Amino acid sequence: MNEWHIAEGYRFAGVISKLRTEPDRRDLAVIVSDRPATAAGVFTQNRVCAAPVQICRERLPRADARAVVICSGNANACTGEQGLADARRMAELVANDIGCAPEQVLVASTGVIGRPLPMPILEAGIPKATAALRPGADAFNDAAHAILTTDTRIKVSTKLVGTHSISGFAKGAAMIGPNMATMLGFLFTDAAVEAQDLQDILRRSTADTFNCISVEGHTSTNDTVLILANGAGPALTGKALQSFEKSVREVCAELARAIAEDAEGAQHLITINVEGCRTDADARTIAKAIAESALVKTAVFGADPNWGRVVSAAGYAGVEFEERDLSLWMGSFLLYERGVPVPFDAKLASAYLRDNRNVDFRVTLELGMGRCTFYTCDLTTDYVNLNADYTT
Amino acid sequence: MNEWHIAEGYRFAGVISKLRTEPDRRDLAVIVSDRPATAAGVFTQNRVCAAPVQICRERLPRADARAVVICSGNANACTGEQGLADARRMAELVANDIGCAPEQVLVASTGVIGRPLPMPILEAGIPKATAALRPGADAFNDAAHAILTTDTRIKVSTKLVGTHSISGFAKGAAMIGPNMATMLGFLFTDAAVEAQDLQDILRRSTADTFNCISVEGHTSTNDTVLILANGAGPALTGKALQSFEKSVREVCAELARAIAEDAEGAQHLITINVEGCRTDADARTIAKAIAESALVKTAVFGADPNWGRVVSAAGYAGVEFEERDLSLWMGSFLLYERGVPVPFDAKLASAYLRDNRNVDFRVTLELGMGRCTFYTCDLTTDYVNLNADYTT
Repeated sequence: MNEWHIAEGYRFAGVISKLRTEPDRRDLAVIVSDRPATAAGVFTQNRVCAAPVQICRERLPRADARAVVICSGNANACTGEQGLADARRMAELVANDIGCAPEQVLVASTGVIGRPLPMPILEAGIPKATAALRPGADAFNDAAHAILTTDTRIKVSTKLVGTHSISGFAKGAAMIGPNMATMLGFLFTDAAVEAQDLQDILRRSTADTFNCISVEGHTSTNDTVLILANGAGPALTGKALQSFEKSVREVCAELARAIAEDAEGAQHLITINVEGCRTDADARTIAKAIAESALVKTAVFGADPNWGRVVSAAGYAGVEFEERDLSLWMGSFLLYERGVPVPFDAKLASAYLRDNRNVDFRVTLELGMGRCTFYTCDLTTDYVNLNADYTT
Repeated sequence: MNEWHIAEGYRFAGVISKLRTEPDRRDLAVIVSDRPATAAGVFTQNRVCAAPVQICRERLPRADARAVVICSGNANACTGEQGLADARRMAELVANDIGCAPEQVLVASTGVIGRPLPMPILEAGIPKATAALRPGADAFNDAAHAILTTDTRIKVSTKLVGTHSISGFAKGAAMIGPNMATMLGFLFTDAAVEAQDLQDILRRSTADTFNCISVEGHTSTNDTVLILANGAGPALTGKALQSFEKSVREVCAELARAIAEDAEGAQHLITINVEGCRTDADARTIAKAIAESALVKTAVFGADPNWGRVVSAAGYAGVEFEERDLSLWMGSFLLYERGVPVPFDAKLASAYLRDNRNVDFRVTLELGMGRCTFYTCDLTTDYVNLNADYTT
């Protein structure tokens, strides 16, 4: 953990509130900025969105955020008016402890949909968390653990940009379908950035990072990415702001890739590069269709170089092209060239899929400069078993 | 089989050509109309579409069709110019044997993508099939068997309409993603119907039948539904044509449902009814999003009444609605009412999913009269295992 760059002026806590049934799982995180911070967020585009998402949407962007509170084990989604009241109460409990207005506190939740939050647990847990707040990597690590659900490990990415740090963590292992932000991600920086700049940077940074991953294409009700910037002094502008944006994008990209890598039951991280489209949007549409094909994903699980499934998924994506424009590589194997199958060694190609945890497909068209890199995972029997019994 | 209504003036054959590796599997079907028949077709909307689809598109609709030839085990898709030449040759071989022009013969193929057709097998097999042509239910049964791939059983539906018969068969168990016609379906009738009427009837009939099923949402390269009408005398008009259309739709619906029921590895047929939308198209969009959610499908496999997954899938479908407009039933259990979870007996609800092979979800909105019934299946570990090793 000694390489982590933890932003100054933040304190972190991740505690065991017993929201989760496992007795030793941290399940409640609070992050406090000692100074008012500019804050921005991007959220799920699901019409059914969780109470904390609705509360954050009301409150962002803003220039005086003080804290974020996150619980795992319960999504507080599909919970009606009570859910909104409960999310507001979570913020209020933090505000009371740190001495600020409730509106300066942001809220996120993740877990099972449709169950009321057990508020007595949070009434006791939030004071416990605010009492545990500390600066530095250990406390940051606790918070990164406290937001996990079926994840097998924390997702952390930190960067130095000039004299400032950007420190991010995220969670997500299923119900990952990109549409704006995907799952929960939190970035903290001690740079000074105008709230609107922060919002624009976050929107652009999530477009080709968190929005270019998929586990099964099911867009969650709770997807949220928040960024707080608490720098003192004049806000970044010009080249410094550009460098800052580049680092934010890198942090988002690393966190997004970590989510796809840790997908439920996954044995492979699959990288799909699509190039040569008329637009980047076309490339993303094709990459997403391939990434979300159960037939492509089971073929990778089975180490089956079944390129026909990749080509046919590209074909139904909805982008206009002719078959003769399309070529496909799997790793270094050219399998399909300008509409014609290329003879290849099926045993070697199968071994490539079997022996590499990270595998890649490259689809090229000859229509323009549009491109996209999309991350997904294989579809395994473990994924099916994990998801066949989740609530009951 | 004595209930089957087999259209007059057709002869059928399904033979073992050894295109498939299993020595005892029928894999080549020929159907001949003794009179010139009007013929219409609907096809995959995949940009990558198989050679036989391209040939049929060129030839349809027409008023003088004489035959259909179908092979299973090889899709003749992604096979370039050679594939087109091979598909044309299949038609020509039949035309030579029955004495008609090659353009009067339609072609379909299904199986592995991207392998050239083994033409010596077809050069020998097609004469064998044309020699075996016979009228009646036994020969129809042979043809229905010869088009199967991973299907576990034939899909047949026949109807009497007035003095005429409509006899249909279909195949499909995976790579089922509705977009125009889905997989292979063939309807034969001894009614007299104008070619353009036949095309319109087929298009309308597939829209809410073959286009409302999904196994995993992967639109095949080969999807084809053909209908031939060889009736002598004046073509149907008015009420008789309407009755005919109703029966065509019923045949399409029964065949489509049979495909969803026999989906690879499936343990449940899931019927999704969506009602109360602004338009039928909106209802279909929501039904399709639910039907194609891996999380919904694994929950049914696990007998987990995880209604949050159904509600959240409706939410990301892309149709505008407010959560308070939405209610959800699973069988007779009301789980979610106008945006609020309803307490229910989880054990009983789980037993409903566990003990019924056919289960249904009903989503109601309060925005209009638009509705859709959509069929899908659960996602099982058997599906993953079946698809993890298909070509190799």
